[in-house]
Amino acid sequence: MMNLQNSLNFSGGPGALPESVLLQLSEELIQVPGLGISILGISHRSEWFAEVISELEDNIRALLGLNEKYHVLLLQGGATQQFSMVPMTLLRGKSTAAEYIQTGYWSGKAIPEAKLEGPIRVIWNGRAAGFNRLPTDDELCFSPDAPYIHYISNETVEGLQFQRVLGRDDVPRVCDMSSDFLSKPGDFERFSLIYAHAQKNIGPSGITVVVVRDELIEQPHAELPSFLDYKTQAKAHSNFNTPPVFAIYAVLLVTRWLIKDIGGLTQMDRINRRKAELLYGLIDDSDGFYQGRAETADRSLMNVVFNLPSLELEKRFIQESQAAGFSGLAGHRAIGGLRASIYNAVTIEAVEELVNFMDAFWRKSVRN
Amino acid sequence: MMNLQNSLNFSGGPGALPESVLLQLSEELIQVPGLGISILGISHRSEWFAEVISELEDNIRALLGLNEKYHVLLLQGGATQQFSMVPMTLLRGKSTAAEYIQTGYWSGKAIPEAKLEGPIRVIWNGRAAGFNRLPTDDELCFSPDAPYIHYISNETVEGLQFQRVLGRDDVPRVCDMSSDFLSKPGDFERFSLIYAHAQKNIGPSGITVVVVRDELIEQPHAELPSFLDYKTQAKAHSNFNTPPVFAIYAVLLVTRWLIKDIGGLTQMDRINRRKAELLYGLIDDSDGFYQGRAETADRSLMNVVFNLPSLELEKRFIQESQAAGFSGLAGHRAIGGLRASIYNAVTIEAVEELVNFMDAFWRKSVRN
Repeated sequence: MMNLQNSLNFSGGPGALPESVLLQLSEELIQVPGLGISILGISHRSEWFAEVISELEDNIRALLGLNEKYHVLLLQGGATQQFSMVPMTLLRGKSTAAEYIQTGYWSGKAIPEAKLEGPIRVIWNGRAAGFNRLPTDDELCFSPDAPYIHYISNETVEGLQFQRVLGRDDVPRVCDMSSDFLSKPGDFERFSLIYAHAQKNIGPSGITVVVVRDELIEQPHAELPSFLDYKTQAKAHSNFNTPPVFAIYAVLLVTRWLIKDIGGLTQMDRINRRKAELLYGLIDDSDGFYQGRAETADRSLMNVVFNLPSLELEKRFIQESQAAGFSGLAGHRAIGGLRASIYNAVTIEAVEELVNFMDAFWRKSVRN
Repeated sequence: MMNLQNSLNFSGGPGALPESVLLQLSEELIQVPGLGISILGISHRSEWFAEVISELEDNIRALLGLNEKYHVLLLQGGATQQFSMVPMTLLRGKSTAAEYIQTGYWSGKAIPEAKLEGPIRVIWNGRAAGFNRLPTDDELCFSPDAPYIHYISNETVEGLQFQRVLGRDDVPRVCDMSSDFLSKPGDFERFSLIYAHAQKNIGPSGITVVVVRDELIEQPHAELPSFLDYKTQAKAHSNFNTPPVFAIYAVLLVTRWLIKDIGGLTQMDRINRRKAELLYGLIDDSDGFYQGRAETADRSLMNVVFNLPSLELEKRFIQESQAAGFSGLAGHRAIGGLRASIYNAVTIEAVEELVNFMDAFWRKSVRN
């Protein structure tokens, strides 16, 4: 029913979505059952949409294991907007520095936006080492006075992922989980604010999920434009002004797929680990032909970033992989190389196909 | 092929879209021809998407008759975000007041957001008259010192529409055209900045078109978060951070439909005027059964807002219209009553069906 190529999409984002979700969205673009009209023509003030929001809030809270003190917000503007909204809310007017950890391309983008709002301190910076590893606990010294700490759980460009929670329990933790959100279980109640744009694991671009604890949005802060005010958005259940109805509905369908088809985050994690093992296994067994970029302990389960012995070979790899039906395997434009992003919707079967292709490409290249 | 009910969607927004556009989007959710993958899985850094942006910028400039001094931006956050971005850019730090005209619900929403950024002066306010008419030129006195003037070309809630350009040529004109954008030709080069969210005439919710003159974004202004900086967005051709690819592509398809299927804005205007004539004609011929809300001279060609002799009859009208396959005919929650929104994608045939229904409803109600 579906076309093969969707399943072979290894793009860094916007990424692959589950086939069943794409099929349902395709049908409902013409007619949503029970309503008779296209999903694009449904009012955001309809009962139908209120139920979509409500179910999605519940699903996200359930998947993350969050209590009722957390608000689930569905905002526009991507993680980039959160780079600013977080310090506008928590840092503007403060005299003590918020603490940031710079582990790669995206955490580096968050820092200048925060500096516009107040004092920050970068407590660890991996630039000197070329962002090929993450800090150990010994390298991180968190201050009890910081208004919050900020880090990124998974760096998509460099392929680095934290497998632990950072920071101290007496300082609010803020985490950008854009590229590993809903990919594995975790102790999410240790965070005060988590944000994630949708276009990696949970939907199309144009929608960003924010989960934020009550007390963070209740505390006094600078007067902000309404659309940048978490409290305004929370009160309105993300329907303060017209939200992106289609994108929100797509995220709802992905959470249903996670809960019903996959069976929850523990199952999702098992699948994701198997996919990563397959790819890193081949890389490690390739006698140095495929070179993983990140240090082994810090490798991302979402973005497998690697190089070949020459630029010429990398170019040929991309061409031949495209000819074989794969897409999205070029590395991020900031660093080049190759990258296989294996977000939730990429299947084990698709990864097996990629591993077979990579194995054949290696043997052929070495023989020549 | 299509279902009847999409064509009978008179929602105030998100509104109806052309059937041909819905069909194409439905197919391309599975597979975009030539790429083989779902539109939701295509990278925003792909050549394909660069061409989408480029064609869309050209189409909008061509439809509006704008020269190359105008940038076409595709932003998130709706008109609400523009309520803030405009004064952040043009008013923050200024000592002379920007001039706002308050003609209804939506222009009223823009004012408090502007006040957060600098001094403003409301030079006309229709509240006392219940927002049932627009100001005449005699009632408007514009200052030559204002950093800009701001007004809304069409008030969707009250059904009021300006049929002329306001302001002075030596002061930048800023206009929210969210609900009549690309519905008729005009002298758009007289504006310095025009913004319009998509979900009325040109696409799904989640995307906002801004056209802005070079000199407005080149002049010095307060340092802003990158995503709120028109200049950053213009330089990046709206691809500064991941944009809503699907929504932008939908808008492109609507502009193609406007150019190729409809034949441009003069033709579109002819169709829109015919639709409005049909509805207002029935209202005016109903012996006061249907009561148009706006004064005749200021009636909107996009939103036909009216009342019935009693709340009871209005309720019955909504129920019976839904049973007959129509949707979206309830008035805005702020004022109640009834509203038929006849945006570009609503056909003359659909309006004829509505007029027939309204005619029958009137005769039946009067007879009882």
